[in-house]
Amino acid sequence: MKKLVVVKIGGNIVDDEHKLSAFLDAFASLSASAAAILVHGGGKMATRLAEKSGIVQQMIDGRRITDAETLKIVTMVYAGYINKNIVAQLQARGCNAMGLSGADGNAILAHKRIKNGAVDYGFAGDIDEVNTVLLSGLIDQKATIILAPITHDKKGQLLNTNADTIAQETAKALCRTYDVTLVYSFEKSGVLLDANDDHTVIKEINPSSYQQLKSEQKIFAGMIPKLDNAFAAINSGVKKVIIGKAESLEHLINGSSGTTIIND
Amino acid sequence: MKKLVVVKIGGNIVDDEHKLSAFLDAFASLSASAAAILVHGGGKMATRLAEKSGIVQQMIDGRRITDAETLKIVTMVYAGYINKNIVAQLQARGCNAMGLSGADGNAILAHKRIKNGAVDYGFAGDIDEVNTVLLSGLIDQKATIILAPITHDKKGQLLNTNADTIAQETAKALCRTYDVTLVYSFEKSGVLLDANDDHTVIKEINPSSYQQLKSEQKIFAGMIPKLDNAFAAINSGVKKVIIGKAESLEHLINGSSGTTIIND
Repeated sequence: MKKLVVVKIGGNIVDDEHKLSAFLDAFASLSASAAAILVHGGGKMATRLAEKSGIVQQMIDGRRITDAETLKIVTMVYAGYINKNIVAQLQARGCNAMGLSGADGNAILAHKRIKNGAVDYGFAGDIDEVNTVLLSGLIDQKATIILAPITHDKKGQLLNTNADTIAQETAKALCRTYDVTLVYSFEKSGVLLDANDDHTVIKEINPSSYQQLKSEQKIFAGMIPKLDNAFAAINSGVKKVIIGKAESLEHLINGSSGTTIIND
Repeated sequence: MKKLVVVKIGGNIVDDEHKLSAFLDAFASLSASAAAILVHGGGKMATRLAEKSGIVQQMIDGRRITDAETLKIVTMVYAGYINKNIVAQLQARGCNAMGLSGADGNAILAHKRIKNGAVDYGFAGDIDEVNTVLLSGLIDQKATIILAPITHDKKGQLLNTNADTIAQETAKALCRTYDVTLVYSFEKSGVLLDANDDHTVIKEINPSSYQQLKSEQKIFAGMIPKLDNAFAAINSGVKKVIIGKAESLEHLINGSSGTTIIND
């Protein structure tokens, strides 16, 4: 099977011009030799713009509550400013980038998140289906897809959707057609034993070592949803998941850096 | 040759929820029977957002001077908010809409406008090339392309670009492959003899009647750039150009409404 790398970059990379530029150099070089999809997060620009506009941002469990005004802002910032700037910068690096939201070509169909008791997440989307026909068709035409974390419900409603989840669902959906590696890249060197020490990267995690690390509370709580996502991807046919520093993309993929999540 | 309709909607339509909705009904229905591309303008949202953010907007000859902060805003509003909302609403109407800026897949290559004497238009783009291979490939895959008025220079710079010009250049570029009709739709019923009376639509304009109308100063000055663009398109192989009311799209195309611009 043909190889495909799905790379997610976090908001902290998007916010840092130098880190983003180094990452885009590496990603453009990767996309010259393998099919690649980039999923980007949001960063602080949406929050800053909301503050300027006097919109109070509510967060529950690290997730933004997306009211109608916030949805406007994240659509502008994620699908507009960030997505198109990444596309333009990749085009300048010779990568045939094409930016899409989940609404474009019905790339990612979602539904408005069901209320969880008293918590209404507003216009947050939970994914129903990734359009593999569209994405593999574009890959066949040598396009490198850049996905913004905005989806739709095919009833006219845009929805704010977690970028980690988009990366995971895209990787899972495409692993029937491709040999997929999923990379979660962010500002840390990998999954760390000591969250404050970048030299304590755990090189490899499999399901049994993960259980042990969790039971010994050696994994920083913030990493657990990412790792749960990683194992869900592995269990659905994704070959491996790599977690590490965005600027080291090349080393993450060749295995010399970061944390690799594999099956036993 | 296969038929293609390139439709441009102005900012006043984008700003009016009811008019936009009626237009999108008609456009979705058109796109079910013919290949269609929609180019949308900006509207007042960018101006309002700039005002809120304390950015002073400078206009020269009806064109916005695009400084770096204004470019950020138009990228967010045009390629983000407006483009993705139109796409989502068309998807809800069964039209397989896909939104692109000129940077996506290098759809529209432009250069930063050369300074005209003392006037620096800032990050305004003049079009060099429309990527017909990309656009006709997407049309063949039954995608209906929705173009935002943002282009790029393939050196990493996004550029604010006039939507009328994008529609015209796209129509011209694709008339080698398709039998192209170009529709400029806006809030008026067509080219009017009396700008305040919607019943004075000029049904047909050809090059000689245009010269006469201009010499008799019967054409509202604001229409002249649009008509010059229309004749430039006709002279480059576009079959006809129709100017009229966005909500009457069906009637514009069947010739029962609006102004049709043709060669003698």
